[in-house]
Amino acid sequence: MKKDQTKGFKEHIRVDDALDRYLREVRIERLQPEEIPVAEALSRILAEDVNSQFDVPNFDRSAVDGYAVRSEDTYGASSTSPMVFDVVGHVGIGQMPSISVAKLQAVEIATGAPLPNGADSIVMLEYTERIGKDKIEVYRPVTPWGDVSRRGEDVRKGERVLMQGTFLQPQDLGILAAIGLDHVKVVRKPRVAVLSTGNELVEPGSSVELGKVIDVNRLIISSLIKDVGGEPMDFGIVRDVTSDIVKRISEGLRSSDMVLISGGTSVGGRDLVPDAVNSLGKPGIIVHGISMRPGKPTALAAVGDKPVILLPGYPVAALIAFNTFVQAVIDRMLGTSLGKVSRQTIRAKMLRRVPSRSGIRDYVRVLVTKTEIGYVAEPIRITGAGIISSMVKANGLVVIPEEVEGLEKGEEVEVTLLRSLHE
Amino acid sequence: MKKDQTKGFKEHIRVDDALDRYLREVRIERLQPEEIPVAEALSRILAEDVNSQFDVPNFDRSAVDGYAVRSEDTYGASSTSPMVFDVVGHVGIGQMPSISVAKLQAVEIATGAPLPNGADSIVMLEYTERIGKDKIEVYRPVTPWGDVSRRGEDVRKGERVLMQGTFLQPQDLGILAAIGLDHVKVVRKPRVAVLSTGNELVEPGSSVELGKVIDVNRLIISSLIKDVGGEPMDFGIVRDVTSDIVKRISEGLRSSDMVLISGGTSVGGRDLVPDAVNSLGKPGIIVHGISMRPGKPTALAAVGDKPVILLPGYPVAALIAFNTFVQAVIDRMLGTSLGKVSRQTIRAKMLRRVPSRSGIRDYVRVLVTKTEIGYVAEPIRITGAGIISSMVKANGLVVIPEEVEGLEKGEEVEVTLLRSLHE
Repeated sequence: MKKDQTKGFKEHIRVDDALDRYLREVRIERLQPEEIPVAEALSRILAEDVNSQFDVPNFDRSAVDGYAVRSEDTYGASSTSPMVFDVVGHVGIGQMPSISVAKLQAVEIATGAPLPNGADSIVMLEYTERIGKDKIEVYRPVTPWGDVSRRGEDVRKGERVLMQGTFLQPQDLGILAAIGLDHVKVVRKPRVAVLSTGNELVEPGSSVELGKVIDVNRLIISSLIKDVGGEPMDFGIVRDVTSDIVKRISEGLRSSDMVLISGGTSVGGRDLVPDAVNSLGKPGIIVHGISMRPGKPTALAAVGDKPVILLPGYPVAALIAFNTFVQAVIDRMLGTSLGKVSRQTIRAKMLRRVPSRSGIRDYVRVLVTKTEIGYVAEPIRITGAGIISSMVKANGLVVIPEEVEGLEKGEEVEVTLLRSLHE
Repeated sequence: MKKDQTKGFKEHIRVDDALDRYLREVRIERLQPEEIPVAEALSRILAEDVNSQFDVPNFDRSAVDGYAVRSEDTYGASSTSPMVFDVVGHVGIGQMPSISVAKLQAVEIATGAPLPNGADSIVMLEYTERIGKDKIEVYRPVTPWGDVSRRGEDVRKGERVLMQGTFLQPQDLGILAAIGLDHVKVVRKPRVAVLSTGNELVEPGSSVELGKVIDVNRLIISSLIKDVGGEPMDFGIVRDVTSDIVKRISEGLRSSDMVLISGGTSVGGRDLVPDAVNSLGKPGIIVHGISMRPGKPTALAAVGDKPVILLPGYPVAALIAFNTFVQAVIDRMLGTSLGKVSRQTIRAKMLRRVPSRSGIRDYVRVLVTKTEIGYVAEPIRITGAGIISSMVKANGLVVIPEEVEGLEKGEEVEVTLLRSLHE
């Protein structure tokens, strides 16, 4: 009887070892920054530390509605023996005060309005009483800078407000605008060429003859690329002909930062795509055949320092290999660990036993639900890598590490969520 | 001494009561569906259940490389007494087989290729040996449909593959394409008009005179709208002049599904914006003044069934009021509870005591870090609602409910994350 040579892989390397070796052999650097309007920078990665060029706010302002006074003039004021002040003017929001405040003078002031010269505190409206047209009684002493928002209290000139590598959120855009920026340097989005190989594949939306299969991988992979901050470039379907594959990959290499090819990693024993990649330049295929299920036929390669990753043809395997390897490469290009931390995990109890062979990392699709005993995870029964519906029915993935021979019923596991849990 | 009348609110309603009353009085319905290409449907909300029009796969196919045979012909085969089959042809991937399989005949078949007529099973390559040009020895019996991916095994014709309200993920686009769809009906994005009021406000990026303040709220609010699946529409800055405010809001009402106004909810005691909204039609202001900190001056209003929400001028308060009220309205328009479940929460121990007044819901900005004792949450010291840097330094929010008078040092709390935690 023949040995297992259908797949013809020279090696079956562990997942972590595969990624380590790959990232050691291929120098993947952070992409160049590009300057874009702050208003368009949501969910981009900040390319440099940002320091403020001025104080925010850039003037002392009142935190309340009331009267601007010299605090020392209020000492001793009480409801039984109020102090009397002359009201010498009014300052509204958005106005620069033209008047100053001298001894026992007060200027009526709105919340957010600039403090007039001479004043160092605000008496809140409710601790005063207007006496006639231009006098007030003050019923309480105030402390220096009481109820004043000081210049620079939010951000000081020169202060670092955001760090390089920040994944920009709405509030971050707010502070960039607040310190006077209208443009910001972010890391350019990795451009990722996506192509599929296979004589059986037809374009989504076209009519499907018997024997043909709709190519769903480019759509899934392109969407995953968008999700992790990259920009997919569609390089279509290429037939199982070495010269065509070589041509299409080299087109991808010319116009992108990375090339992803799905399918055709081992076609009937003939490794057309690996051969094509190897013909394009060193180092070529670095790792081919990984101890993971699904995802075993994944290959990690490069031409020069440009990553070329061969994803399995089965959509579920392609998706898992993407999350495991491609995301790590995109993270390097963005200079962040976004992919790793963006996926939510929860702990759940396994509802059934799942066997696993030692030495292989298994990715089990599960449906997590909330019950009286907490979260429970039910393995999706059909687990073929070709069964895309399993990935739609599942809302989570459980990893069974290489040294573990399956999960027991009732065992608590960590689930990486594929979609949010509705309560 | 005067009573607290600076804010002049008629009521201070609890957060939950405010939202309940608002959603009871204003009929907010799911928006109409729109049909878009599947390739553009990532992160959109599915508007209807989707059922498959055909089986996926739409033919029986081989799951391995090997030979298609009639399983009954293999019974009794073993490595010591192999069965001999005539190889009568070959079927590759993407081809429809022209030959049939008769008794003791075999057809060479590639993974994914359609099963020839007559055959009901596959013998894997490694359990065979080629004998000369057109014969094989088979060393193992196979069962009916062994190593065959059956027609419809992924999706059956008529089966529901996705439910209305699904937030579309990459794998969902994959299955939509797999069942032959190139377009899909999703809920139209809510169009949200965003405007700011205030004489002190200037556009981001413009030079800032003393006394003026950059309007950061439209930028933050527009980004938040994008984050929760809406489409922001910029209606600019409007001065504190009632007629101008009325005009701008009615422009917003004409072209959007909802109007958000930040600032000016109570300017020096004069409620310009609430008065403007009330002048535009019933029901007008439904709730004004909410027992929350920050966010107290928030007002919930409507003109007809079109929501108009007045957010506080301070950015931090505006952001918290958005998360609390606007998100709930957008969720209704999308027919989902996305906003509620999309934010990740973790449990952490408070590093310091935080006092809170009974009867008010406090939103405490915290910095969560991972330590040897687990996650700990440090309250950000400067907590003024005007201090936008507090929202950038924080990575989480802790809610102190109305009936709780503060958090103790060491107390375990639930933190809603504002950004992902880096490990």
